[in-house]
Amino acid sequence: MDTPADVFRGITDRFAGVTVDGREEKVDKGSFQDKLKKSLDFWTTNKNRAIWFRVYQEQADWVPVLAENGFDFHHARTGVVTMYRWLPENESNNLPNFAHTLMGVGGLVINEKNEVLVVSDRYAMIPNSWKLPGGYVEPRENLIDAAIREVDEETGIRTEFRSVVSLRHAHGGTFGCSDLYVVIALKPLNLDFKRCEREIARLQWMPIAEYLEHPQVHQTNRQFVTTFLDYEKRGLTITCRDDVHQVLKKKYSLYYVEREQQQQQQNDQENS
Amino acid sequence: MDTPADVFRGITDRFAGVTVDGREEKVDKGSFQDKLKKSLDFWTTNKNRAIWFRVYQEQADWVPVLAENGFDFHHARTGVVTMYRWLPENESNNLPNFAHTLMGVGGLVINEKNEVLVVSDRYAMIPNSWKLPGGYVEPRENLIDAAIREVDEETGIRTEFRSVVSLRHAHGGTFGCSDLYVVIALKPLNLDFKRCEREIARLQWMPIAEYLEHPQVHQTNRQFVTTFLDYEKRGLTITCRDDVHQVLKKKYSLYYVEREQQQQQQNDQENS
Repeated sequence: MDTPADVFRGITDRFAGVTVDGREEKVDKGSFQDKLKKSLDFWTTNKNRAIWFRVYQEQADWVPVLAENGFDFHHARTGVVTMYRWLPENESNNLPNFAHTLMGVGGLVINEKNEVLVVSDRYAMIPNSWKLPGGYVEPRENLIDAAIREVDEETGIRTEFRSVVSLRHAHGGTFGCSDLYVVIALKPLNLDFKRCEREIARLQWMPIAEYLEHPQVHQTNRQFVTTFLDYEKRGLTITCRDDVHQVLKKKYSLYYVEREQQQQQQNDQENS
Repeated sequence: MDTPADVFRGITDRFAGVTVDGREEKVDKGSFQDKLKKSLDFWTTNKNRAIWFRVYQEQADWVPVLAENGFDFHHARTGVVTMYRWLPENESNNLPNFAHTLMGVGGLVINEKNEVLVVSDRYAMIPNSWKLPGGYVEPRENLIDAAIREVDEETGIRTEFRSVVSLRHAHGGTFGCSDLYVVIALKPLNLDFKRCEREIARLQWMPIAEYLEHPQVHQTNRQFVTTFLDYEKRGLTITCRDDVHQVLKKKYSLYYVEREQQQQQQNDQENS
Protein backbone atom coordinates (compact mmCIF):
# COMPACT_ATOMS: atom_id res chain seq x y z
CA MET A 1 0.00 0.00 0.00
CA ASP A 2 1.48 3.41 -0.95
CA THR A 3 1.90 5.90 1.88
CA PRO A 4 -0.35 8.98 1.43
CA ALA A 5 1.38 12.38 1.48
CA ASP A 6 -0.13 13.47 4.83
CA VAL A 7 1.13 10.34 6.61
CA PHE A 8 4.63 9.73 8.05
CA ARG A 9 6.61 7.65 5.56
CA GLY A 10 8.72 5.76 8.08
CA ILE A 11 10.70 2.63 7.34
CA THR A 12 9.00 -0.77 7.56
CA ASP A 13 10.87 -3.69 9.17
CA ARG A 14 10.56 -7.48 8.76
CA PHE A 15 8.14 -7.67 11.73
CA ALA A 16 5.68 -5.26 9.96
CA GLY A 17 6.80 -2.48 12.31
CA VAL A 18 7.32 1.12 11.19
CA THR A 19 10.09 3.46 12.40
CA VAL A 20 9.68 7.22 11.98
CA ASP A 21 12.92 9.20 12.39
CA GLY A 22 12.18 12.80 13.43
CA ARG A 23 15.04 14.17 11.35
CA GLU A 24 14.02 12.34 8.18
CA GLU A 25 10.43 13.60 7.97
CA LYS A 26 9.07 17.07 7.37
CA VAL A 27 6.34 18.36 9.70
CA ASP A 28 4.91 21.85 9.40
CA LYS A 29 4.89 23.78 12.66
CA GLY A 30 1.76 22.91 14.66
CA SER A 31 0.64 20.04 12.41
CA PHE A 32 2.40 17.17 14.24
CA GLN A 33 -0.74 16.04 16.11
CA ASP A 34 -2.84 16.01 12.95
CA LYS A 35 -0.28 14.08 10.90
CA LEU A 36 0.18 11.60 13.77
CA LYS A 37 -3.56 10.82 13.95
CA LYS A 38 -3.83 10.31 10.17
CA SER A 39 -0.72 8.11 10.28
CA LEU A 40 -2.12 5.94 13.11
CA ASP A 41 -5.34 5.41 11.11
CA PHE A 42 -3.30 4.43 8.06
CA TRP A 43 -1.01 2.04 9.97
CA THR A 44 -3.98 0.41 11.72
CA THR A 45 -5.72 -0.23 8.38
CA ASN A 46 -2.41 -1.47 6.95
CA LYS A 47 -2.07 -4.00 9.84
CA ASN A 48 1.28 -2.62 10.97
CA ARG A 49 2.44 -3.84 14.38
CA ALA A 50 4.94 -1.78 16.43
CA ILE A 51 5.23 1.94 15.60
CA TRP A 52 8.50 3.57 16.64
CA PHE A 53 9.28 7.32 16.80
CA ARG A 54 12.82 8.62 17.16
CA VAL A 55 12.36 12.09 18.68
CA TYR A 56 15.37 14.42 18.85
CA GLN A 57 16.06 16.90 21.65
CA GLU A 58 14.91 19.85 19.50
CA GLN A 59 11.57 18.07 18.91
CA ALA A 60 10.89 17.47 22.61
CA ASP A 61 7.40 19.01 22.20
CA TRP A 62 6.40 15.88 20.22
CA VAL A 63 6.84 13.77 23.38
CA PRO A 64 3.63 14.80 25.24
CA VAL A 65 1.62 14.51 22.00
CA LEU A 66 2.92 10.98 21.39
CA ALA A 67 2.24 10.10 25.05
CA GLU A 68 -1.39 11.32 24.71
CA ASN A 69 -1.74 9.08 21.66
CA GLY A 70 -0.76 5.89 23.44
CA PHE A 71 3.01 5.95 22.92
CA ASP A 72 5.41 5.03 25.69
CA PHE A 73 9.18 5.41 26.13
CA HIS A 74 11.41 2.57 24.99
CA HIS A 75 15.02 3.81 25.06
CA ALA A 76 17.09 6.97 24.76
CA ARG A 77 20.60 8.27 24.43
CA THR A 78 22.01 11.83 24.43
CA GLY A 79 20.07 13.75 21.80
CA VAL A 80 17.24 11.31 21.06
CA VAL A 81 14.45 9.35 22.75
CA THR A 82 12.64 6.43 21.08
CA MET A 83 8.93 6.00 21.83
CA TYR A 84 6.71 3.13 20.66
CA ARG A 85 3.13 2.01 20.42
CA TRP A 86 2.03 -1.59 19.84
CA LEU A 87 -0.97 -1.52 17.48
CA PRO A 88 -2.35 -5.10 17.26
CA GLU A 89 -5.26 -5.53 19.66
CA ASN A 90 -5.53 -9.32 19.30
CA GLU A 91 -1.82 -10.10 19.82
CA SER A 92 0.30 -9.41 22.89
CA ASN A 93 3.35 -7.18 22.62
CA ASN A 94 6.56 -9.23 22.48
CA LEU A 95 8.95 -6.40 21.68
CA PRO A 96 12.46 -6.90 23.02
CA ASN A 97 13.68 -4.83 25.94
CA PHE A 98 16.44 -2.38 25.28
CA ALA A 99 19.95 -3.14 26.57
CA HIS A 100 20.09 -3.44 30.36
CA THR A 101 23.68 -4.58 30.87
CA LEU A 102 26.63 -2.24 31.39
CA MET A 103 29.82 -3.76 30.01
CA GLY A 104 32.99 -3.15 31.95
CA VAL A 105 36.55 -4.43 31.66
CA GLY A 106 39.41 -4.81 34.09
CA GLY A 107 43.04 -5.20 33.03
CA LEU A 108 45.08 -7.78 34.95
CA VAL A 109 48.58 -6.53 34.20
CA ILE A 110 51.44 -8.57 35.67
CA ASN A 111 55.07 -7.57 35.07
CA GLU A 112 58.18 -9.77 34.90
CA LYS A 113 58.83 -9.29 38.62
CA ASN A 114 55.42 -10.91 39.38
CA GLU A 115 53.83 -7.63 40.44
CA VAL A 116 50.21 -6.71 39.69
CA LEU A 117 49.22 -3.23 38.54
CA VAL A 118 46.62 -1.95 41.06
CA VAL A 119 44.74 1.31 41.44
CA SER A 120 42.62 3.02 44.06
CA ASP A 121 39.76 5.01 42.49
CA ARG A 122 39.10 8.61 43.45
CA TYR A 123 35.34 7.94 43.66
CA ALA A 124 35.63 4.33 44.87
CA MET A 125 32.60 2.38 46.13
CA ILE A 126 34.90 1.19 48.92
CA PRO A 127 37.37 3.98 49.78
CA ASN A 128 41.07 3.00 49.72
CA SER A 129 40.48 -0.45 48.28
CA TRP A 130 42.93 -1.68 45.63
CA LYS A 131 41.49 -2.97 42.39
CA LEU A 132 42.45 -3.62 38.80
CA PRO A 133 42.52 -0.63 36.43
CA GLY A 134 39.54 -0.61 34.09
CA GLY A 135 36.21 0.96 33.23
CA TYR A 136 33.25 0.91 30.90
CA VAL A 137 33.40 -0.39 27.34
CA GLU A 138 32.60 2.40 24.85
CA PRO A 139 29.86 1.94 22.24
CA ARG A 140 31.14 -0.28 19.37
CA GLU A 141 34.40 -1.00 21.18
CA ASN A 142 35.90 -4.49 21.43
CA LEU A 143 36.56 -5.86 24.90
CA ILE A 144 40.32 -6.25 24.58
CA ASP A 145 40.69 -2.78 23.04
CA ALA A 146 38.65 -1.38 25.94
CA ALA A 147 40.89 -3.03 28.56
CA ILE A 148 44.08 -1.80 26.83
CA ARG A 149 42.62 1.73 26.53
CA GLU A 150 41.44 1.94 30.14
CA VAL A 151 44.77 0.70 31.55
CA ASP A 152 46.62 3.24 29.41
CA GLU A 153 44.27 6.12 30.34
CA GLU A 154 44.33 5.41 34.08
CA THR A 155 47.99 4.43 34.53
CA GLY A 156 49.99 5.29 31.41
CA ILE A 157 50.98 1.62 31.06
CA ARG A 158 50.71 0.33 27.49
CA THR A 159 49.89 -3.35 27.17
CA GLU A 160 49.16 -6.25 24.84
CA PHE A 161 46.64 -9.08 25.12
CA ARG A 162 47.41 -12.35 26.92
CA SER A 163 44.10 -14.04 27.83
CA VAL A 164 40.56 -13.42 28.96
CA VAL A 165 40.46 -14.54 32.61
CA SER A 166 36.92 -14.37 33.98
CA LEU A 167 33.48 -12.79 33.71
CA ARG A 168 31.66 -11.32 36.69
CA HIS A 169 27.90 -10.75 36.31
CA ALA A 170 25.86 -8.81 38.87
CA HIS A 171 22.47 -7.10 39.00
CA GLY A 172 21.12 -3.82 40.34
CA GLY A 173 24.02 -1.54 39.46
CA THR A 174 24.30 1.98 38.01
CA PHE A 175 21.07 3.22 36.30
CA GLY A 176 19.37 0.01 37.54
CA CYS A 177 21.37 -2.01 34.99
CA SER A 178 23.12 -5.32 35.38
CA ASP A 179 26.87 -5.27 35.11
CA LEU A 180 29.10 -7.64 33.14
CA TYR A 181 32.76 -7.16 34.03
CA VAL A 182 35.32 -8.96 31.88
CA VAL A 183 38.82 -9.41 33.30
CA ILE A 184 41.56 -9.52 30.68
CA ALA A 185 45.19 -10.44 31.35
CA LEU A 186 47.60 -8.04 29.66
CA LYS A 187 51.36 -7.89 29.27
CA PRO A 188 52.93 -4.48 30.08
CA LEU A 189 55.11 -2.84 27.44
CA ASN A 190 56.43 -0.11 29.77
CA LEU A 191 56.69 0.16 33.55
CA ASP A 192 56.58 3.89 34.35
CA PHE A 193 53.24 5.27 35.50
CA LYS A 194 51.43 8.34 34.31
CA ARG A 195 48.50 8.52 36.72
CA CYS A 196 45.12 9.90 35.59
CA GLU A 197 44.60 12.45 38.37
CA ARG A 198 40.92 12.92 37.63
CA GLU A 199 39.95 9.28 38.27
CA ILE A 200 42.78 7.60 40.16
CA ALA A 201 43.84 8.47 43.71
CA ARG A 202 46.79 6.04 43.98
CA LEU A 203 48.44 3.31 41.95
CA GLN A 204 51.33 0.86 42.33
CA TRP A 205 52.93 -2.37 41.21
CA MET A 206 52.04 -4.76 44.06
CA PRO A 207 53.83 -8.12 44.48
CA ILE A 208 51.38 -10.96 43.79
CA ALA A 209 52.01 -12.54 47.20
CA GLU A 210 51.13 -9.24 48.91
CA TYR A 211 48.06 -8.77 46.67
CA LEU A 212 46.70 -12.20 47.61
CA GLU A 213 46.87 -11.36 51.34
CA HIS A 214 46.14 -7.62 51.28
CA PRO A 215 43.15 -6.59 53.50
CA GLN A 216 42.24 -3.84 51.00
CA VAL A 217 42.04 -6.30 48.07
CA HIS A 218 38.66 -7.95 48.04
CA GLN A 219 38.04 -11.62 47.50
CA THR A 220 36.72 -11.41 43.93
CA ASN A 221 39.74 -9.39 42.82
CA ARG A 222 42.02 -11.98 44.46
CA GLN A 223 40.21 -14.77 42.66
CA PHE A 224 40.90 -13.17 39.25
CA VAL A 225 44.62 -13.45 39.96
CA THR A 226 44.53 -17.02 41.26
CA THR A 227 42.42 -18.00 38.24
CA PHE A 228 44.94 -16.51 35.83
CA LEU A 229 47.86 -18.17 37.64
CA ASP A 230 46.02 -21.48 37.26
CA TYR A 231 45.58 -20.88 33.50
CA GLU A 232 49.30 -20.06 33.18
CA LYS A 233 50.31 -23.25 34.98
CA ARG A 234 48.05 -25.31 32.71
CA GLY A 235 48.96 -23.43 29.51
CA LEU A 236 45.33 -22.31 29.00
CA THR A 237 44.43 -19.17 27.06
CA ILE A 238 40.94 -17.80 26.46
CA THR A 239 41.61 -16.18 23.13
CA CYS A 240 39.75 -13.86 20.76
CA ARG A 241 39.41 -14.46 17.05
CA ASP A 242 37.79 -11.96 14.68
CA ASP A 243 35.57 -13.41 12.01
CA VAL A 244 33.10 -12.28 9.36
CA HIS A 245 29.71 -13.96 9.01
CA GLN A 246 29.52 -15.87 5.69
CA VAL A 247 26.10 -14.57 4.73
CA LEU A 248 25.49 -11.38 6.73
CA LYS A 249 29.07 -10.12 6.06
CA LYS A 250 29.05 -8.83 9.62
CA LYS A 251 32.16 -8.77 11.81
CA TYR A 252 32.25 -10.85 14.98
CA SER A 253 34.74 -11.42 17.77
CA LEU A 254 34.68 -14.94 19.18
CA TYR A 255 36.09 -15.77 22.61
CA TYR A 256 36.91 -19.37 23.59
CA VAL A 257 39.64 -21.53 25.12
CA GLU A 258 42.36 -21.79 22.50
CA ARG A 259 43.02 -25.21 20.99
CA GLU A 260 46.07 -27.15 22.05
CA GLN A 261 47.63 -26.70 18.63
CA GLN A 262 51.21 -26.28 19.74
CA GLN A 263 50.80 -29.12 22.20
CA GLN A 264 49.23 -31.21 19.46
CA GLN A 265 51.99 -30.40 16.99
CA GLN A 266 54.62 -31.48 19.51
CA ASN A 267 52.83 -34.77 20.16
CA ASP A 268 52.54 -35.40 16.42
CA GLN A 269 56.26 -34.85 15.99
CA GLU A 270 57.11 -37.21 18.84
CA ASN A 271 54.81 -39.90 17.42
CA SER A 272 56.03 -39.63 13.83
CA MET B 1 22.73 23.22 52.79
CA ASP B 2 19.03 22.59 53.49
CA THR B 3 16.77 22.36 50.45
CA PRO B 4 14.21 25.23 50.38
CA ALA B 5 10.53 24.24 50.09
CA ASP B 6 10.07 25.54 46.52
CA VAL B 7 13.02 23.48 45.19
CA PHE B 8 13.00 19.80 44.15
CA ARG B 9 14.37 17.71 47.01
CA GLY B 10 16.01 15.00 44.91
CA ILE B 11 18.59 12.54 46.16
CA THR B 12 22.28 13.49 46.18
CA ASP B 13 24.87 10.90 45.05
CA ARG B 14 28.58 10.49 45.83
CA PHE B 15 29.53 12.48 42.72
CA ALA B 16 27.55 15.57 43.98
CA GLY B 17 24.82 14.77 41.45
CA VAL B 18 21.10 15.11 42.23
CA THR B 19 18.35 12.75 41.01
CA VAL B 20 14.73 13.93 40.99
CA ASP B 21 12.17 11.14 40.64
CA GLY B 22 8.91 12.47 39.16
CA ARG B 23 6.77 10.19 41.32
CA GLU B 24 8.51 11.17 44.57
CA GLU B 25 8.02 14.93 44.32
CA LYS B 26 4.87 17.04 44.43
CA VAL B 27 4.42 19.70 41.75
CA ASP B 28 1.29 21.85 41.55
CA LYS B 29 -0.33 21.92 38.12
CA GLY B 30 1.37 24.53 35.93
CA SER B 31 4.20 25.28 38.37
CA PHE B 32 6.77 22.81 37.02
CA GLN B 33 8.72 25.42 35.02
CA ASP B 34 8.89 27.82 37.96
CA LYS B 35 10.05 25.15 40.42
CA LEU B 36 12.63 23.89 37.90
CA LYS B 37 14.19 27.35 37.48
CA LYS B 38 14.40 27.91 41.24
CA SER B 39 15.91 24.45 41.65
CA LEU B 40 18.56 25.06 38.97
CA ASP B 41 19.58 28.29 40.73
CA PHE B 42 19.84 26.45 44.03
CA TRP B 43 21.85 23.52 42.59
CA THR B 44 24.23 25.90 40.79
CA THR B 45 24.91 27.83 44.02
CA ASN B 46 25.28 24.53 45.84
CA LYS B 47 27.95 23.36 43.30
CA ASN B 48 25.98 20.27 42.33
CA ARG B 49 27.23 18.52 39.16
CA ALA B 50 24.89 16.27 37.12
CA ILE B 51 21.14 16.83 37.58
CA TRP B 52 18.95 13.84 36.66
CA PHE B 53 15.15 13.83 36.17
CA ARG B 54 13.17 10.60 35.98
CA VAL B 55 10.03 11.58 34.06
CA TYR B 56 7.12 9.11 33.91
CA GLN B 57 4.81 8.64 30.90
CA GLU B 58 2.00 10.56 32.62
CA GLN B 59 4.39 13.53 33.12
CA ALA B 60 5.44 13.68 29.44
CA ASP B 61 4.65 17.42 29.36
CA TRP B 62 7.73 17.99 31.61
CA VAL B 63 9.97 16.78 28.75
CA PRO B 64 9.81 19.90 26.51
CA VAL B 65 10.21 22.17 29.57
CA LEU B 66 13.31 20.27 30.66
CA ALA B 67 14.65 20.37 27.08
CA GLU B 68 14.21 24.16 26.96
CA ASN B 69 16.17 24.38 30.20
CA GLY B 70 19.23 22.60 28.85
CA PHE B 71 18.34 19.00 29.71
CA ASP B 72 18.97 16.17 27.27
CA PHE B 73 17.85 12.54 27.14
CA HIS B 74 20.05 9.92 28.75
CA HIS B 75 18.10 6.64 28.87
CA ALA B 76 14.55 5.29 29.00
CA ARG B 77 12.50 2.17 29.51
CA THR B 78 8.78 1.51 29.26
CA GLY B 79 7.06 4.06 31.48
CA VAL B 80 9.98 6.41 32.22
CA VAL B 81 12.62 8.55 30.51
CA THR B 82 15.68 9.91 32.33
CA MET B 83 16.95 13.35 31.30
CA TYR B 84 20.10 15.06 32.57
CA ARG B 85 21.94 18.35 32.63
CA TRP B 86 25.61 18.79 33.48
CA LEU B 87 25.97 21.97 35.56
CA PRO B 88 29.71 22.63 36.04
CA GLU B 89 30.95 25.11 33.46
CA ASN B 90 34.65 24.65 34.19
CA GLU B 91 34.69 20.82 34.10
CA SER B 92 33.84 18.58 31.15
CA ASN B 93 31.01 16.08 31.46
CA ASN B 94 32.32 12.55 32.06
CA LEU B 95 29.00 10.87 32.78
CA PRO B 96 28.86 7.22 31.80
CA ASN B 97 26.85 6.13 28.78
CA PHE B 98 23.82 3.99 29.43
CA ALA B 99 23.94 0.28 28.53
CA HIS B 100 24.53 -0.32 24.81
CA THR B 101 24.94 -4.09 24.73
CA LEU B 102 22.10 -6.57 24.23
CA MET B 103 22.79 -9.83 26.04
CA GLY B 104 21.71 -13.01 24.31
CA VAL B 105 22.21 -16.70 25.04
CA GLY B 106 22.20 -19.83 22.91
CA GLY B 107 21.76 -23.33 24.32
CA LEU B 108 24.03 -26.01 22.87
CA VAL B 109 22.03 -29.11 23.78
CA ILE B 110 23.57 -32.45 22.79
CA ASN B 111 21.81 -35.73 23.60
CA GLU B 112 23.28 -39.17 24.28
CA LYS B 113 23.02 -40.10 20.59
CA ASN B 114 25.35 -37.19 19.70
CA GLU B 115 22.57 -35.11 18.18
CA VAL B 116 22.34 -31.31 18.52
CA LEU B 117 19.05 -29.54 19.19
CA VAL B 118 18.56 -27.03 16.34
CA VAL B 119 15.78 -24.59 15.45
CA SER B 120 14.77 -22.47 12.50
CA ASP B 121 13.28 -19.13 13.60
CA ARG B 122 9.97 -17.90 12.21
CA TYR B 123 11.42 -14.38 11.75
CA ALA B 124 14.99 -15.49 10.96
CA MET B 125 17.62 -13.03 9.69
CA ILE B 126 18.56 -15.82 7.22
CA PRO B 127 15.41 -17.77 6.28
CA ASN B 128 15.59 -21.57 6.76
CA SER B 129 18.95 -21.50 8.51
CA TRP B 130 19.42 -23.85 11.46
CA LYS B 131 20.71 -22.36 14.69
CA LEU B 132 20.84 -23.05 18.40
CA PRO B 133 17.70 -22.27 20.42
CA GLY B 134 18.09 -19.10 22.49
CA GLY B 135 17.16 -15.48 22.88
CA TYR B 136 17.62 -12.36 24.96
CA VAL B 137 18.55 -12.38 28.63
CA GLU B 138 15.79 -10.79 30.72
CA PRO B 139 16.57 -7.93 33.13
CA ARG B 140 18.23 -9.31 36.31
CA GLU B 141 18.42 -12.83 34.87
CA ASN B 142 21.54 -14.99 35.12
CA LEU B 143 23.05 -16.27 31.87
CA ILE B 144 22.63 -19.97 32.57
CA ASP B 145 19.03 -19.49 33.76
CA ALA B 146 18.33 -17.54 30.56
CA ALA B 147 19.70 -20.33 28.33
CA ILE B 148 17.72 -23.00 30.19
CA ARG B 149 14.53 -20.87 30.00
CA GLU B 150 14.88 -20.07 26.29
CA VAL B 151 15.54 -23.70 25.32
CA ASP B 152 12.50 -24.77 27.33
CA GLU B 153 10.24 -22.04 25.91
CA GLU B 154 11.24 -22.63 22.29
CA THR B 155 11.50 -26.43 22.25
CA GLY B 156 9.97 -27.90 25.43
CA ILE B 157 13.32 -29.54 26.25
CA ARG B 158 14.33 -29.14 29.91
CA THR B 159 18.06 -29.02 30.53
CA GLU B 160 20.84 -28.64 33.06
CA PHE B 161 24.14 -26.77 32.89
CA ARG B 162 27.34 -28.35 31.52
CA SER B 163 29.73 -25.52 30.49
CA VAL B 164 29.94 -22.08 29.00
CA VAL B 165 31.37 -22.58 25.49
CA SER B 166 32.05 -19.25 23.81
CA LEU B 167 31.17 -15.55 23.62
CA ARG B 168 30.38 -13.80 20.35
CA HIS B 169 30.55 -9.98 20.35
CA ALA B 170 29.30 -7.88 17.43
CA HIS B 171 28.34 -4.26 16.83
CA GLY B 172 25.54 -2.43 15.04
CA GLY B 173 22.64 -4.73 15.93
CA THR B 174 19.03 -4.16 17.03
CA PHE B 175 18.36 -0.59 18.31
CA GLY B 176 21.94 0.28 17.25
CA CYS B 177 23.26 -1.77 20.18
CA SER B 178 26.16 -4.16 20.29
CA ASP B 179 25.32 -7.78 20.88
CA LEU B 180 27.00 -10.21 23.26
CA TYR B 181 25.86 -13.78 22.65
CA VAL B 182 26.90 -16.41 25.18
CA VAL B 183 26.75 -20.05 24.13
CA ILE B 184 26.09 -22.48 26.97
CA ALA B 185 26.30 -26.26 26.71
CA LEU B 186 23.32 -27.96 28.35
CA LYS B 187 22.36 -31.56 29.06
CA PRO B 188 18.80 -32.50 28.04
CA LEU B 189 16.53 -34.04 30.68
CA ASN B 190 13.78 -35.05 28.19
CA LEU B 191 13.79 -35.64 24.44
CA ASP B 192 10.25 -34.89 23.23
CA PHE B 193 9.68 -31.48 21.68
CA LYS B 194 6.95 -28.99 22.36
CA ARG B 195 7.59 -26.35 19.71
CA CYS B 196 6.82 -22.67 20.38
CA GLU B 197 4.67 -21.96 17.33
CA ARG B 198 4.91 -18.19 17.68
CA GLU B 199 8.71 -18.03 17.37
CA ILE B 200 9.94 -21.32 15.90
CA ALA B 201 9.16 -22.58 12.38
CA ARG B 202 10.96 -25.94 12.62
CA LEU B 203 13.12 -27.86 15.05
CA GLN B 204 14.95 -31.20 15.21
CA TRP B 205 17.69 -33.27 16.79
CA MET B 206 20.44 -33.18 14.13
CA PRO B 207 23.40 -35.62 14.23
CA ILE B 208 26.61 -33.71 14.99
CA ALA B 209 28.31 -35.00 11.82
CA GLU B 210 25.42 -33.68 9.71
CA TYR B 211 25.40 -30.35 11.60
CA LEU B 212 29.10 -29.79 10.92
CA GLU B 213 28.55 -30.21 7.14
CA HIS B 214 25.06 -28.74 6.75
CA PRO B 215 24.86 -25.88 4.20
CA GLN B 216 22.15 -24.17 6.30
CA VAL B 217 24.33 -24.17 9.45
CA HIS B 218 26.62 -21.18 9.36
CA GLN B 219 30.29 -21.24 10.23
CA THR B 220 30.06 -19.52 13.62
CA ASN B 221 27.37 -21.96 14.76
CA ARG B 222 29.56 -24.87 13.60
CA GLN B 223 32.50 -23.45 15.53
CA PHE B 224 30.52 -23.44 18.80
CA VAL B 225 30.08 -27.22 18.45
CA THR B 226 33.71 -27.95 17.51
CA THR B 227 34.84 -25.76 20.43
CA PHE B 228 32.65 -27.69 22.89
CA LEU B 229 33.82 -31.05 21.52
CA ASP B 230 37.41 -29.85 22.09
CA TYR B 231 36.59 -28.92 25.71
CA GLU B 232 35.00 -32.33 26.26
CA LYS B 233 38.05 -34.15 24.91
CA ARG B 234 40.33 -32.09 27.17
CA GLY B 235 38.06 -32.27 30.23
CA LEU B 236 37.64 -28.47 30.29
CA THR B 237 34.60 -26.77 31.82
CA ILE B 238 33.92 -23.03 31.97
CA THR B 239 31.92 -23.03 35.15
CA CYS B 240 29.83 -20.54 37.10
CA ARG B 241 30.16 -19.90 40.81
CA ASP B 242 27.85 -17.60 42.76
CA ASP B 243 29.50 -15.44 45.36
CA VAL B 244 28.66 -12.54 47.67
CA HIS B 245 30.97 -9.52 47.91
CA GLN B 246 32.58 -9.37 51.38
CA VAL B 247 31.91 -5.68 51.91
CA LEU B 248 29.11 -4.65 49.53
CA LYS B 249 27.11 -7.83 50.35
CA LYS B 250 26.15 -7.94 46.67
CA LYS B 251 25.63 -11.18 44.76
CA TYR B 252 27.92 -12.00 41.85
CA SER B 253 28.22 -14.84 39.37
CA LEU B 254 31.79 -15.61 38.34
CA TYR B 255 32.60 -17.53 35.15
CA TYR B 256 36.04 -19.11 34.63
CA VAL B 257 37.73 -22.35 33.57
CA GLU B 258 37.19 -24.77 36.44
CA ARG B 259 40.26 -25.91 38.37
CA GLU B 260 41.61 -29.40 37.80
CA GLN B 261 40.57 -30.38 41.31
CA GLN B 262 39.64 -33.97 40.57
CA GLN B 263 42.76 -34.34 38.46
CA GLN B 264 44.79 -32.78 41.27
CA GLN B 265 43.25 -35.00 43.91
CA GLN B 266 44.09 -38.12 41.87
CA ASN B 267 47.70 -36.99 41.45
CA ASP B 268 47.98 -36.29 45.18
CA GLN B 269 46.71 -39.77 45.99
CA GLU B 270 49.18 -41.38 43.59
CA ASN B 271 52.06 -39.39 45.05
CA SER B 272 51.21 -40.05 48.69
